[in-house]
Amino acid sequence: MKVYLAGPDVFLPDPLGMAARKRAICAAHGLEGVFPVDGHPDHPEDPDLPRWLWIYRRNEAHMREAGAIIANLTPFRGPSADAGTVYELGFMRALGRRLFGYSNVAADFVPRTLGFLGPAARRDAEGCWRDGQEMAVEDFGLADNLMIDGGIREAGGLFVRRAVPEAERFTDLAAFEVCVRALASGEGGGR
Amino acid sequence: MKVYLAGPDVFLPDPLGMAARKRAICAAHGLEGVFPVDGHPDHPEDPDLPRWLWIYRRNEAHMREAGAIIANLTPFRGPSADAGTVYELGFMRALGRRLFGYSNVAADFVPRTLGFLGPAARRDAEGCWRDGQEMAVEDFGLADNLMIDGGIREAGGLFVRRAVPEAERFTDLAAFEVCVRALASGEGGGR
Repeated sequence: MKVYLAGPDVFLPDPLGMAARKRAICAAHGLEGVFPVDGHPDHPEDPDLPRWLWIYRRNEAHMREAGAIIANLTPFRGPSADAGTVYELGFMRALGRRLFGYSNVAADFVPRTLGFLGPAARRDAEGCWRDGQEMAVEDFGLADNLMIDGGIREAGGLFVRRAVPEAERFTDLAAFEVCVRALASGEGGGR
Repeated sequence: MKVYLAGPDVFLPDPLGMAARKRAICAAHGLEGVFPVDGHPDHPEDPDLPRWLWIYRRNEAHMREAGAIIANLTPFRGPSADAGTVYELGFMRALGRRLFGYSNVAADFVPRTLGFLGPAARRDAEGCWRDGQEMAVEDFGLADNLMIDGGIREAGGLFVRRAVPEAERFTDLAAFEVCVRALASGEGGGR
């Protein structure tokens, strides 16, 4: 089975090195990892197409051919996961694929959001946390926005969280490997 | 046609007031706006279900019945749009629905990200902006991560950006109305 390896990993200084590491872990469990930057036969680079649109089309093609997604949902430039990765998670849910996610930050969404907001956060009369623009902080004891946790749950998958020191936050693959093992073993393999 | 009205609007102090305003604009153009917090006949509140999972299932049901999404992609707690909204945009793209988005911030993704990163951002030897963890800043002159702009483009939709003063950033509906008009007129109505 092809597994789409979503995440902000594509922004690493050596994305191909990360692709090789993730692919090797997948292969060790009988799975074919597909990294977003991998080439696709139907989507060769096209000088007449804006580069971003070519990348989009290639990523969509990779996803449509994959039976599962393992998304790196480690918080990225804010309290939530990388936006492109979250888009891909929703995309794969709608296709009915298997969904797995991991984060190298163990803290819940609320304390992360409060840490991000700093002194701007305050409780309203009902005890709900609000930011400086009066927008509520979603508080369900989850890892991220409920659509993320909910999609993974509904697909019967896993959202693995693990505390990793900041210096290794985007390179440590222990939580990723838990997802690969679960997918390969059939655990978290659908409803 | 039902239109799913995605956005961090659900976190406003008066989400039902915003739902009524958006629904009225849709109705004036012959469209039925569906707000995430609207009830769904197949998903009454269930005391035996965690509230977040009930909300997830209801939102998914709303999306599956909608022919289009108009997503409030105004940056939310970081350089990108609200994570739940982005998930829903990807979900609707995979279902083949019409996609529209708007942002009440006009600036491109790169200057927004650099403003967020502050002094941590620096250019590497190739001139690529990187954050304090060496992760690249995606630089395509787009409004957000390329998966967001790309999905809307591929669906033949519109991503409307408009500079709105901070105090009205989550309540101004001028850009939303541009999306509604385009959807109702058939413009941006699919590939």
